Amino acid sequence: MTHDTIVTAAALAIGDELLSGRTKDKNIGHLAELLTAAGIDLLEVRIVPDVEERIVEALDALRSRYDHVFTSGGIGPTHDDITADAVARAFGVACVHEDAAMALLSAHYAERGMEFTDARKRMARMPVGATHIDNPVSRAPGFSIGNVHVMAGVPSVFQAMLDQVLPTLPTGIRLISQSVNCPFGEGDIGGPLTAVARAHSDTNIGSYPRFDGKSFSTEIVVRGRDAGAVAAAAAAVEAMLAEVALARQASAG
Amino acid sequence: MTHDTIVTAAALAIGDELLSGRTKDKNIGHLAELLTAAGIDLLEVRIVPDVEERIVEALDALRSRYDHVFTSGGIGPTHDDITADAVARAFGVACVHEDAAMALLSAHYAERGMEFTDARKRMARMPVGATHIDNPVSRAPGFSIGNVHVMAGVPSVFQAMLDQVLPTLPTGIRLISQSVNCPFGEGDIGGPLTAVARAHSDTNIGSYPRFDGKSFSTEIVVRGRDAGAVAAAAAAVEAMLAEVALARQASAG
Repeated sequence: MTHDTIVTAAALAIGDELLSGRTKDKNIGHLAELLTAAGIDLLEVRIVPDVEERIVEALDALRSRYDHVFTSGGIGPTHDDITADAVARAFGVACVHEDAAMALLSAHYAERGMEFTDARKRMARMPVGATHIDNPVSRAPGFSIGNVHVMAGVPSVFQAMLDQVLPTLPTGIRLISQSVNCPFGEGDIGGPLTAVARAHSDTNIGSYPRFDGKSFSTEIVVRGRDAGAVAAAAAAVEAMLAEVALARQASAG
Repeated sequence: MTHDTIVTAAALAIGDELLSGRTKDKNIGHLAELLTAAGIDLLEVRIVPDVEERIVEALDALRSRYDHVFTSGGIGPTHDDITADAVARAFGVACVHEDAAMALLSAHYAERGMEFTDARKRMARMPVGATHIDNPVSRAPGFSIGNVHVMAGVPSVFQAMLDQVLPTLPTGIRLISQSVNCPFGEGDIGGPLTAVARAHSDTNIGSYPRFDGKSFSTEIVVRGRDAGAVAAAAAAVEAMLAEVALARQASAG
């Protein structure tokens, strides 16, 4: 498989409130789901505090390694919203009140009879060279620069911005996923499942325990980019489970 | 404030399922809340896939920078559970079937008339020199080695293990937090709030927008380690909000 059929991504969630437990992040799981559906592999996530050095460091690590970086948080109007500055610093460009964003927000607040305060003007700041990500919810745009896509932390706004930016990105071959329910715990099937995984190394087989408070069962998920390979591996898992069930009946009888 | 009054931590969540969106992480938010309550500052979170190199790299970056690293996931009985191996490799020690864990699990499965399969024996593997983190839910222990605490990914087991390990750790001075509700959007108060934040730089003032689908309001959170400083900053925020309200009434009247 050549590199240009795989598109990779990382997520960077920014905010003290995520690290203090005040806010439970909802954006990472949503982003993960939508990227997977779009054929983009999310390969790393980081959460960092509202500290410019930490944001820049994480941005540089992630944007050099992955095709895309999606950030959430820190683009509002208050003093603790420093994501635009950090992104500008990472790219070595100035962070300015961008003309089109100023015009957009000026009109937006005028329509509503609201003052276009200095705080609100902060939301028009972005690195020189950035392009807007439209915000149909509350107007203040996110932005993309290079391979970094900067979005809001409020989940409804994050989701709306992601819906704007995702269709504009080149995507890879979609990962196909097939799930097999297993009534036994991982300890009952771990050995034979390892054998199946080795025999079907053109797929990726994940095993996820479920605990209902009394006993464990397992969800087995086969992932791959070739439909035939995924189907073959899933069939091998099913056959393995049938054998395990038979062996357990025999030993119980 | 001397360094030994601040205790820092990072979280490392391990698992393809978190990055594909199949599983929405519940452990990071829980850990964040409990660490904050215990007086330990969570300063970074990473999520990485079930790839040994990626796990080792993240472990090394985090354990060298923070006082503690808490991991979740990848310690079950199946082929994709490779956290113990990765931690052993990071510490440069062997990963072995540990005697006490083997005895514990052997007795546990014997009691239940369940076979102690090779897969289940995998759950007794840990780096040489590790100490157990008890698992009151499903018995297979987590472990600590150096400043790294390795716990399960299943939330009920993760939480039970965290309850075991947290009381054994030295903690720092607890962060005090005071919340002020603000009926105005961040754009209305961003300017004066910046002034309050500057005047009370011995605290950390966070501003969190809330959006009810129609309009924004704000929660302002003052954090610090000195109760008097936090109370003074919160009072200054309240006074600022009263002034903003007054000014809005005047301009409306």
